[in-house]
Amino acid sequence: MPLYSSLTPEEAAAELSALQESYRSYQAKGLKLNMARGKPSAAQLDLSRPMLEVLDEEADLHSCDGTDCGNYGGLSGIPEAKQLLSYMLNDRPENIIAGGSSSLTLMFDAISRLMAFGTEGHAPWSTLDQVKWLCPAPGYDRHFAICETFGMELIPIPITPDGPDMDLVEQLVANDSSIKGIWCVPQYANPTGITYSDEVVQRLACMDCAAPDFRIFWDNAYSVHHLFEGAEEHVADIADACHAAGNPNRYLKFASTSKITFPGAGISGLAASPMNIEETLRVAGIQMVGPDKLNQLRHGRFLPTQEALSRHMAAHAKLLAPKFQLVDRKLKEGLSEKVECSWSSPNGGYFISFEGPKSTAKRIVRLAKEAGVQLTDAGATWPYGKDPFDSNIRIAPSMPPLEELDEAMDVFVTCVKIAALEQLLY
Amino acid sequence: MPLYSSLTPEEAAAELSALQESYRSYQAKGLKLNMARGKPSAAQLDLSRPMLEVLDEEADLHSCDGTDCGNYGGLSGIPEAKQLLSYMLNDRPENIIAGGSSSLTLMFDAISRLMAFGTEGHAPWSTLDQVKWLCPAPGYDRHFAICETFGMELIPIPITPDGPDMDLVEQLVANDSSIKGIWCVPQYANPTGITYSDEVVQRLACMDCAAPDFRIFWDNAYSVHHLFEGAEEHVADIADACHAAGNPNRYLKFASTSKITFPGAGISGLAASPMNIEETLRVAGIQMVGPDKLNQLRHGRFLPTQEALSRHMAAHAKLLAPKFQLVDRKLKEGLSEKVECSWSSPNGGYFISFEGPKSTAKRIVRLAKEAGVQLTDAGATWPYGKDPFDSNIRIAPSMPPLEELDEAMDVFVTCVKIAALEQLLY
Repeated sequence: MPLYSSLTPEEAAAELSALQESYRSYQAKGLKLNMARGKPSAAQLDLSRPMLEVLDEEADLHSCDGTDCGNYGGLSGIPEAKQLLSYMLNDRPENIIAGGSSSLTLMFDAISRLMAFGTEGHAPWSTLDQVKWLCPAPGYDRHFAICETFGMELIPIPITPDGPDMDLVEQLVANDSSIKGIWCVPQYANPTGITYSDEVVQRLACMDCAAPDFRIFWDNAYSVHHLFEGAEEHVADIADACHAAGNPNRYLKFASTSKITFPGAGISGLAASPMNIEETLRVAGIQMVGPDKLNQLRHGRFLPTQEALSRHMAAHAKLLAPKFQLVDRKLKEGLSEKVECSWSSPNGGYFISFEGPKSTAKRIVRLAKEAGVQLTDAGATWPYGKDPFDSNIRIAPSMPPLEELDEAMDVFVTCVKIAALEQLLY
Repeated sequence: MPLYSSLTPEEAAAELSALQESYRSYQAKGLKLNMARGKPSAAQLDLSRPMLEVLDEEADLHSCDGTDCGNYGGLSGIPEAKQLLSYMLNDRPENIIAGGSSSLTLMFDAISRLMAFGTEGHAPWSTLDQVKWLCPAPGYDRHFAICETFGMELIPIPITPDGPDMDLVEQLVANDSSIKGIWCVPQYANPTGITYSDEVVQRLACMDCAAPDFRIFWDNAYSVHHLFEGAEEHVADIADACHAAGNPNRYLKFASTSKITFPGAGISGLAASPMNIEETLRVAGIQMVGPDKLNQLRHGRFLPTQEALSRHMAAHAKLLAPKFQLVDRKLKEGLSEKVECSWSSPNGGYFISFEGPKSTAKRIVRLAKEAGVQLTDAGATWPYGKDPFDSNIRIAPSMPPLEELDEAMDVFVTCVKIAALEQLLY
């Protein structure tokens, strides 16, 4: 069949009518399927169950440096945790703070700290008339929400297969000192799945910034989250690039084990320059006595080496890869040569980014919802939740079992087709 | 022997000389004893080791409401954790947020939120010319440090056996709208050990505040931390009092299991009015996806009932009470009828508050340090670390084993005597 756009109105109406019948049959099934958030599946969580027994009643609760992990103290985390995080953050343990269960909290707290106290003697950002932030889009809604909560102006930046549009980024940061930072998910980006090219990393590190306290928030959330053996991507290290460029304090690197062990019950990490580490700890030392070191010890002993981590991630990939392949196949079979659309085929991470015809994303998501398939809200991948093209949908295939995903994708494909035909006809 | 102050200069010099000899003999021992912080002892931590095995590899990781504690979500915490916290916070589970491992973080984050965003539509505190805070003193240094970090002006309030000096508090808050709150450790206070009287609680709830967004930070850190059976003290509930007084949003109650299970690896809780809970969750939902629910489940299943909690705390008391008794005996034997001083004999909590002669606390702490006994810094119990009388020393007897505590107290008593005599002589 040719592209829908080449159908006659009568042909299109007939096709739509047939699709609406399928749609109603899905509705009749009372489905409850969820592809909304990047949650690991139950089978993935089971991979980390042995970790629950790493610390038993008789366990030595001292870390390798003699810290009693059951008592107060140890503000920057224990060596075992820093070691594990060093594999994910691509940095040396001494540059790392091992934190609590959420890297999102590390990021929120970093921005909160910069707002309230500033950095390197510069004015606290909350005292400035305006703070702007660069948001490669589509991107991660929770990143954007932090900036929005603090009243920043969010500037969307188009994202290319190599990373953010650096010509635009360089031009903006060079001329506007109220632009204080940029969000980056540099490897297997959320949701596009792309990995920043070496040149993009280099340009981010070297670019002239009007703001002397410009910060790159480098959320390397998927650094070890490869899907296919032999197709691993690795982003260049922003720390090396910034140090070489003479901008050693420009970056803050974040990671967590949320999608490695247990989401929400993992450990998180921040890697940065000694100055940034020191400023972070100065405030963290007022905010807490120390992180949960028992959970850090549990993690460090469960995944004590790079090899152990790689084996563990390969087991995740074995569960995840078929889901990504299924989504790709379903989209190809259902939509190729019919609807003008595209989607990502990432080699890692948690998302497939779907670009439908302009002005259909909201409609598709609503149709899917009314047939029992929950998707991420249309627009959520853009600052302020506003996709200027209303075309991007983030598909999160990790959570549902394969058979449910199969059915959910049938519904999704049907909804895309209906929305596309409605647009042609009305 | 009469009070040192009635000695002749010759008698005092002779006594000082003898004490200096003892002091040198302590120095020669190369002691390393620590009474600086309220850390539970190794034996106390062992009481909670069975909790490490509550969640084993085969455990059902769902909370009683069906939440998968191993996956994302559950912003306000799981029912089991709220239930446990309800015994400590003296409140209903539905008024409680169960948080991460640190109640200090809940307090810091609450103040950070009020600074950045304000409450109930009032101006964010960071936009005001000045924010002042009432600090009953001696009090908890980490409380004061939070306010100091945010640039507030700290106002010390004398503390009586019944709680803060309410005549002064009422007068201050009625006339100065820049006074935004007060720190309270209302039961077995840090460090004085006192419990607020019903009248004080009532007056705090009812008093007229010039600031409509005045907040009582009610850190009930020692709510179940009784030392002696039959001598339990219980502070009246600030929530009931505030609701009855028509000031339902005035209080924020905090507690944690840090001194119940594992310090730094426990769970924390906030109880407040629906408005305050809602405002807290609105920001918390940007800061994180949810707290560590596996650790909440571990705690909830380990201490599932009020009776289980009481039994557990009685086991703590059995280890702690002899230490408090030893300190009291050593001070009585060593200092009564010699030095003009006083100290608390609390029925719960973690501290003994020692009041030496004026202008001796710094000297005593330094002398003890140079003989290998670490005490909390003199002044730490006062805002800005400045004790106007230089007389208060916080003794934390929980951490050292009894025999070490015995020796540490010999050193302490010797140092007090030396400082007192030095003051008389020079």
